[in-house]
Amino acid sequence: MIRVGVNGYGTIGKRVADAVAVQADMELVGVTKTSPDYGAEAALRRGYDLYVAIDDRADEFEDAGLGIAGTLDDLLDAVDVIVDCAPGGVGERNRPTYEAHDTPAIYQGGEDAAIADASFNARASGEIGDVGSLRVVSCNTTGLSRLLAPLDEAYGVEKARVTLVRRGGDPSETDRGPINDVVPDPATVPSHHGPDVNTILPDVDVDTAALKAPVTGMHTHSVNVTLGGEPTTDEVRELLRDETRLFLIPERAGIDGAGTLKDYAADIGRDRGDLWENCVWEESISVEGKDLYLFQNVHQEADVVPENVDAVRTLATDISREESTARTNEALGVGLDSLLSDGGAGRNQIAAGD
Amino acid sequence: MIRVGVNGYGTIGKRVADAVAVQADMELVGVTKTSPDYGAEAALRRGYDLYVAIDDRADEFEDAGLGIAGTLDDLLDAVDVIVDCAPGGVGERNRPTYEAHDTPAIYQGGEDAAIADASFNARASGEIGDVGSLRVVSCNTTGLSRLLAPLDEAYGVEKARVTLVRRGGDPSETDRGPINDVVPDPATVPSHHGPDVNTILPDVDVDTAALKAPVTGMHTHSVNVTLGGEPTTDEVRELLRDETRLFLIPERAGIDGAGTLKDYAADIGRDRGDLWENCVWEESISVEGKDLYLFQNVHQEADVVPENVDAVRTLATDISREESTARTNEALGVGLDSLLSDGGAGRNQIAAGD
Repeated sequence: MIRVGVNGYGTIGKRVADAVAVQADMELVGVTKTSPDYGAEAALRRGYDLYVAIDDRADEFEDAGLGIAGTLDDLLDAVDVIVDCAPGGVGERNRPTYEAHDTPAIYQGGEDAAIADASFNARASGEIGDVGSLRVVSCNTTGLSRLLAPLDEAYGVEKARVTLVRRGGDPSETDRGPINDVVPDPATVPSHHGPDVNTILPDVDVDTAALKAPVTGMHTHSVNVTLGGEPTTDEVRELLRDETRLFLIPERAGIDGAGTLKDYAADIGRDRGDLWENCVWEESISVEGKDLYLFQNVHQEADVVPENVDAVRTLATDISREESTARTNEALGVGLDSLLSDGGAGRNQIAAGD
Repeated sequence: MIRVGVNGYGTIGKRVADAVAVQADMELVGVTKTSPDYGAEAALRRGYDLYVAIDDRADEFEDAGLGIAGTLDDLLDAVDVIVDCAPGGVGERNRPTYEAHDTPAIYQGGEDAAIADASFNARASGEIGDVGSLRVVSCNTTGLSRLLAPLDEAYGVEKARVTLVRRGGDPSETDRGPINDVVPDPATVPSHHGPDVNTILPDVDVDTAALKAPVTGMHTHSVNVTLGGEPTTDEVRELLRDETRLFLIPERAGIDGAGTLKDYAADIGRDRGDLWENCVWEESISVEGKDLYLFQNVHQEADVVPENVDAVRTLATDISREESTARTNEALGVGLDSLLSDGGAGRNQIAAGD
């Protein structure tokens, strides 16, 4: 049993906590909060032990009537792995604390790559040896790595060029922008996302250009990949369909954007309407000569969640990444297979009463 | 066992179906769809029998590999009550069909009041006799009726004046507006919402002015009520806190708008992040002389759902509305009671392991 703590119960932390809690080989010891807000209440309602991330704020929790189990130091002493889900940059400030407790740590993609011994994506990372810390790359880098790895393995990638139309903030981040504009962010090209992909896939040539839009649902990627070969459109569709963390959205489903995607996720019973998979519009997948084009959406709140679970196993056990991925997918239900897909791949699920 | 069908498995219909399915005294016989899109797939995944709302489209479902149980006519013959959840105005076109099958029907608030024998709100409607059809009033009218009924009972309402800042569309309605504007809609004042409240509370004097904003989360109401008495702010807060379908948002919860409200709902495990209750900012509740002011949010996808369940019982049984409301609340989990509320009303829930 791997004992896991989550430091920072925000957008990512609460989802990682839920995901850890349903793994048969993991125990969620507790989560931390910096203040007694609705998230702290929600953690208690879900039955999670609550630890105070900042020692001298314990009184605030007591005043609010929210019982706490201890401080971050207590949590670090009780776990095999701490998953840092603090806001970007705060992980770097937390690192000395983890090291002082000799607690192996997982960081998020908002930190510099240098924070950890290796950057991590369950599908695309190369061999990872004996390390004491990992950094799960950001939602966008995760989405790109999952897509480029199978393409590179099957055909070789001569060059990938991606425009990222990023969401301005999460649904609960009411103070974010832009409002009523699409802004180059950064205006310099390429953006940092391409180099970040290279922390996972060092040999893939990828340029990225990043925009920010006044939406909160998902990131949208417009992808061009010049391939090493000339597969047919159908061959690429089948290649991508075989990936468990890519979801090919069937044209006939009537799903036209992040709103309907998340509506679909909620419809089929996904907690919080989360989409852990890259969502690729099947009809957008087109090959012209060596050039592949497609649109994909990435749910910034969710796609790194199964990767964090796999990172925990990579850090704490000798279980292979393939086996870990299979366990995580099974426990969470990762791997959308629409009944409306061409070829009826999912039709048996009706018979199975899913 | 009350056999219930839902005609139209859209935003409201799918939620009514879920709510009916968990009532101990109801059986969800099936739901209808007009086309084989992701909603139809989702209904099958939830284990609901699927009926075709338009006879000659059965082939489209077969082509898509989605099995159907029959047509709308079949469904109408198999149920005690049909809940019409078709888009606004389509219920009127469906009415002759229901009447031809002698099937008692519930309509939604997008229809004219004249469509049914009576308009309905579980908390605020007066005595409803032996009727063959009911119309559950719209989300906004539901929200206003729930608020005004206890105020009128406790203090009398001399005059209510409400500005409704309405959401432009639901999260899945990507073709709706306005974009980047707040538009008077209608520009004539008062709007129809006040008269619609009078279909529930005929003697309450209420004027409404309606705007439309480029948001999809919830409607926001800015409410002024000139009361018949001069209660204290605290007295009004306690009055409203006692209502099971009003949720007083505690100031310390850090909930600042629809984004965080729905995040909270998802955090505490609400399917689809639904908020069945009026969400009233507790610190906004202020009394100046006889004038009460407050802000409340109404989740347009969800607040009428428990009302539909109660409408089914009112139409099909002799169960009292109070008893029905209690059953519906219990089965769904209606009645938010934050652990962070002043007075710690919800603190016992920690002890209860909720």
